[in-house]
Amino acid sequence: MKETQCSNELTCDSRKEITGCRFSLYPMDSDFVKIILHALKKADTSAVWSQSDALSTLYRGRLNYVMDAVKGLFMYAWKKEVHMSLEGQISKGCPGDTAGDTKLDYTGDLPNNTQLQGIHFPALCKLALYPMGTGDYMDDIAKVISMAEEQGLKPETIHYATRIQGDIHALFTYLESVCSLMESVVPHYILHFTISVNSPTNEEEV
Amino acid sequence: MKETQCSNELTCDSRKEITGCRFSLYPMDSDFVKIILHALKKADTSAVWSQSDALSTLYRGRLNYVMDAVKGLFMYAWKKEVHMSLEGQISKGCPGDTAGDTKLDYTGDLPNNTQLQGIHFPALCKLALYPMGTGDYMDDIAKVISMAEEQGLKPETIHYATRIQGDIHALFTYLESVCSLMESVVPHYILHFTISVNSPTNEEEV
Repeated sequence: MKETQCSNELTCDSRKEITGCRFSLYPMDSDFVKIILHALKKADTSAVWSQSDALSTLYRGRLNYVMDAVKGLFMYAWKKEVHMSLEGQISKGCPGDTAGDTKLDYTGDLPNNTQLQGIHFPALCKLALYPMGTGDYMDDIAKVISMAEEQGLKPETIHYATRIQGDIHALFTYLESVCSLMESVVPHYILHFTISVNSPTNEEEV
Repeated sequence: MKETQCSNELTCDSRKEITGCRFSLYPMDSDFVKIILHALKKADTSAVWSQSDALSTLYRGRLNYVMDAVKGLFMYAWKKEVHMSLEGQISKGCPGDTAGDTKLDYTGDLPNNTQLQGIHFPALCKLALYPMGTGDYMDDIAKVISMAEEQGLKPETIHYATRIQGDIHALFTYLESVCSLMESVVPHYILHFTISVNSPTNEEEV
């Protein structure tokens, strides 16, 4: 939604490479400031451009590095006894996007990947996908629900969203695969997701 | 994203009247269960259809009653010392929506309105609007940013969203006016919003 500020055509083209993820971390714990600051500090963001404000944090760069940074931040924040949610909005191709505020020249391994390999925990996730400027967006949505089935994430359609569940690595792998598909089929998409861990809610009692 | 389950044309038509708001309340406090349950209980939901799961709560019905119920829930949950966020997704017109799970026959005053009139507190909000199935969606987005300016909410464009600020009543009035506009101009829209109160973040230090 930001106004275009391109100075030349070459710079404008770089917008097509930029994926952004704006997210908020919500630890339902009185110690939330410590948990959030610890995770923000520990996540290696050397492969992305980053900015925080009172409402959310934004990482921008290439899709694989952006997802690695968000995954790192969430997994570093995880504590066995703390109910916590991550609300994220991944976007690419907004016609009003700027060419700046990004890092596109990073190459090499995913900075957080090795450290995260040994950590596993189950999580619930809901997601809503918006392929923009196209009339047949419902077909794209049906396709990504099939992908969740194929990846063993037990998708369940709920009003306005799809629920999935699985190991935290499998959920992030899926979210990234949805984004990869979308960037190949539509000029502009947005994927909203919520990941929740350690919820005290017993759904059989709801 | 739910599959169509219409039994006849008349029932299908009622889908055009249904607005839904799926939301999650995040009190950043170890006492979060008590705060959420108190608010869920105190909010008068007699004018909407309601369902909760481990990830979120959904109210469905007519726009004004849905917004009254969400506003009630959030304002009843508010505590002076507790940093809290509400993440919401308002939607109307999804081609895959069902005709059921709603309340459309309620008439009369907004059930929570009178009780909320004396309560005021400032809040921050970010929102992202998705008018679906249309090519000129950026014009609609520009229009709702102007509306925020006219309503004195100091809109600020940030990557992928717009930030506004103001008294809690003014923010809910604005969100509802955006929805009213959208339902008159596009067949399907989604409005994602985050309302945050009592954040300890000093943005001048970020």
